[in-house]
Amino acid sequence: MKDTPDNWFASAIQTLTDPQNQRVWSIIVSLFGDLAQAPGDRLSGGALSRIIMPTGIKPEAIRVALHRLRKDGWIDSARQGRVSEHFLTDFGRARSAEVSPRIYTPAPPAAKDWHLLIAEDSAGQIPLDDLLPTRDYFSLSRTVALGSGPLPEDCKELLVLSCCPDAVPDWVRTRVCPPELFDAAQGLLTALSQAERLLPASAADLSPLQTATLRMLIVHRWRRVVLRQPDLPTAFFPADWPGPACRAAVFRLLDWLPRPDLSALEAE
Amino acid sequence: MKDTPDNWFASAIQTLTDPQNQRVWSIIVSLFGDLAQAPGDRLSGGALSRIIMPTGIKPEAIRVALHRLRKDGWIDSARQGRVSEHFLTDFGRARSAEVSPRIYTPAPPAAKDWHLLIAEDSAGQIPLDDLLPTRDYFSLSRTVALGSGPLPEDCKELLVLSCCPDAVPDWVRTRVCPPELFDAAQGLLTALSQAERLLPASAADLSPLQTATLRMLIVHRWRRVVLRQPDLPTAFFPADWPGPACRAAVFRLLDWLPRPDLSALEAE
Repeated sequence: MKDTPDNWFASAIQTLTDPQNQRVWSIIVSLFGDLAQAPGDRLSGGALSRIIMPTGIKPEAIRVALHRLRKDGWIDSARQGRVSEHFLTDFGRARSAEVSPRIYTPAPPAAKDWHLLIAEDSAGQIPLDDLLPTRDYFSLSRTVALGSGPLPEDCKELLVLSCCPDAVPDWVRTRVCPPELFDAAQGLLTALSQAERLLPASAADLSPLQTATLRMLIVHRWRRVVLRQPDLPTAFFPADWPGPACRAAVFRLLDWLPRPDLSALEAE
Repeated sequence: MKDTPDNWFASAIQTLTDPQNQRVWSIIVSLFGDLAQAPGDRLSGGALSRIIMPTGIKPEAIRVALHRLRKDGWIDSARQGRVSEHFLTDFGRARSAEVSPRIYTPAPPAAKDWHLLIAEDSAGQIPLDDLLPTRDYFSLSRTVALGSGPLPEDCKELLVLSCCPDAVPDWVRTRVCPPELFDAAQGLLTALSQAERLLPASAADLSPLQTATLRMLIVHRWRRVVLRQPDLPTAFFPADWPGPACRAAVFRLLDWLPRPDLSALEAE
């Protein structure tokens, strides 16, 4: 049994809204990353408001957030006649592009060539973080980090061992997947299932703006899960880790809600 | 050019005598382990003196050492008429048998199935040593140990990873092979080369007692190197680690000096 047209949208928004992270600047970053990441992509102040305001965020809060994003160099704005248009700066676009592959992969390729980097454990030691060739390592302890891919060439101070996990104790699972991350994934999975039941039978019943609002909420909340989830073999996660189910539900919904054209958003 | 018969033996003894470890009880342990490890094997006080005294150790020092070894349960003594006979106790024989495989292997089998055990690195942590399934692990740091062979089954607190070394930094090589161990191996290698040049052309020119004395000195000194050398892949040792050359020289000489019969030692 479906709600009336207005009711289902309000209920879906309520369900999908992140109970933890309602920072408006962060929601705007998710929105631009999802809809207007290409060079030349712009969103008018009006379209921005029509997408964001149904979530209960006030125009004043949007203005403050845009001001902050301009100050931080993420977003720039320009006037076209009476219309104010907003777009990602080169810096903002680069940051957005950096995380997009992790956010938008429905099936991440299984990482290979796992290896450990071990730093010396002594009083005057250099912190492991300063010795790591990149940041893409998961820190297992003060002196041990785990990563995948090609072996680093330039880390003379570190013991490098190719490895594959045989037994993973609970303290490692908790380190890889702390309770907050587990709860965030579980909460999103529940929200997505509820939202799926609320949606109308056909995507044609949604306006481009409604589609944009729902995608924004889903992507924003998924970012918090997927970007905090270390890329580690399944063995490192708790047996009941809802990450893969959550990812599947995200992409089932995003596929059902295809990205609207920017022109359609401005037209309404 | 060879020395006169007496001179070569005195020079070989001087060359082979360990400059670091002249503890008489320890030399006697090496001697019994080499010549009289089997149940029923006995050495008379006279034979013991004739083997040991050429190294400059006085009869009184031998008596004190035997007293200590009896007190510690390593050795027992019995009178046969006017002769005092000494032999390993069951305890002493077991200790001796425990280390013999490592001491007497001319070519140790390459260890396989290397794995790391990683303990949690936190304030209230249980020391790694208390969590290790056996003592045959090399401690790389406070929380990381390396071992070979079958994966441990019963260490729930530890992360277990099969591994193979790719890059070994200097701090690991120094930990695996500290300067004292390196110097001991290098010193023994030099001593063995000098001794080889001093020996007569044919082993038939040596008496059983001379053979026993030289074997005792070689084995005693080799113990200090081989029992302190961790069983780790070659990559973990310094590039100029003299261990393998030292082992080869030890067994070249021990083969040239075959173990004399106990009866031959008593007959002289």
